[in-house]
Amino acid sequence: MNRVGLHELTPELPRFLGQAAYLQLSFFEHLSRAVTAAPTTASKEVVSRVAGMALARHQSFVAELKRLGLDPSAEMEPFVIPIDAFQLTTQGSDWSETLLAYYVESGILDDGFLSIAGGFDDEETERIAKVLSDDEPRRLIAAELSAAIGDNPRLASRLALYGRRLVGDVLLLARSALDLPENTAPDDERLEPVLTELIADHTRRMDELGLTA
Amino acid sequence: MNRVGLHELTPELPRFLGQAAYLQLSFFEHLSRAVTAAPTTASKEVVSRVAGMALARHQSFVAELKRLGLDPSAEMEPFVIPIDAFQLTTQGSDWSETLLAYYVESGILDDGFLSIAGGFDDEETERIAKVLSDDEPRRLIAAELSAAIGDNPRLASRLALYGRRLVGDVLLLARSALDLPENTAPDDERLEPVLTELIADHTRRMDELGLTA
Repeated sequence: MNRVGLHELTPELPRFLGQAAYLQLSFFEHLSRAVTAAPTTASKEVVSRVAGMALARHQSFVAELKRLGLDPSAEMEPFVIPIDAFQLTTQGSDWSETLLAYYVESGILDDGFLSIAGGFDDEETERIAKVLSDDEPRRLIAAELSAAIGDNPRLASRLALYGRRLVGDVLLLARSALDLPENTAPDDERLEPVLTELIADHTRRMDELGLTA
Repeated sequence: MNRVGLHELTPELPRFLGQAAYLQLSFFEHLSRAVTAAPTTASKEVVSRVAGMALARHQSFVAELKRLGLDPSAEMEPFVIPIDAFQLTTQGSDWSETLLAYYVESGILDDGFLSIAGGFDDEETERIAKVLSDDEPRRLIAAELSAAIGDNPRLASRLALYGRRLVGDVLLLARSALDLPENTAPDDERLEPVLTELIADHTRRMDELGLTA
């Protein structure tokens, strides 16, 4: 959980929770579109379950904000425009791309947010880890994607390409969660080992789908 | 709960559960669109909570189907086309109409389905009533609608008009949940008292929003 360096760049807790809460709400919206676009009733059923899990995560972060006596909507507000823009550019052109986008984004961002949360006190870190470390949503989506690729092997190269297009935007969003001065260089040495590790885990997740990262 | 006559027209349990499950999934999709269209982050937050409640209802009916050893997707399948078509014609042209559609539809259909469920054995009736009788989702939506009407009183007449346009389609859907021979007359005397009661309750709910039914 404690990746090199990242927890040294942990922002204030309300900012972290506001961003994490809105990101999960945005995943919920993204997945809801995939519910509507699902090719079969069985797939619709699975993706709706995953959408419900994203919503539950959102609600957990909202509950944490309330526990701190904060207004969840106000804390989410600064992240609405950047995260909506992020989802708009990464929503995919069809059902399989939409699922892959969730798979790639939640993979990298869950890892990144877990790592950042290592900078809070132990109890808080623990509560956040409990929300983000369950990989069932991603496993359910991976099964849908594997089945889709099995039905149509030509999908693999298109999804691999789309996955590569996503990574840059996802890493930028992960970076925006850090407490970094604005003039920090993109290759700041504190960031490099972390990025390397996030990308290595991403590559492993793409491998699990039989896709080249 | 036991409205005149309706429980005499109760269909087989799997058919009821399949339709009820798909209807809630469809409400979930409908509400998810309203999450994306919400005018403020606070509204987004509330509507997402209601979407989660529709999803939980869907999951309860799916669990009932599984308990009977049935495949939920297969049982929902016959209802996909009619319910998708229903949602398409009743999705509303903006956020407030989308919310009103959920308010009107879930009001009439929850009542109708509760009444139909009176024809099952007591335990089953009880389990179904537990899922459908909580009116918190509708109360949350009513509060959003009241606030929107308060901000823009001219909205009231448009929404009242839209509500009147919805009722016919909603009653047709309620009717399709009954075990009726195809050649049953629209004014079959067993249906009339039930329709009268469903419409009276609908009128009361519109009144609560200050809208003329």
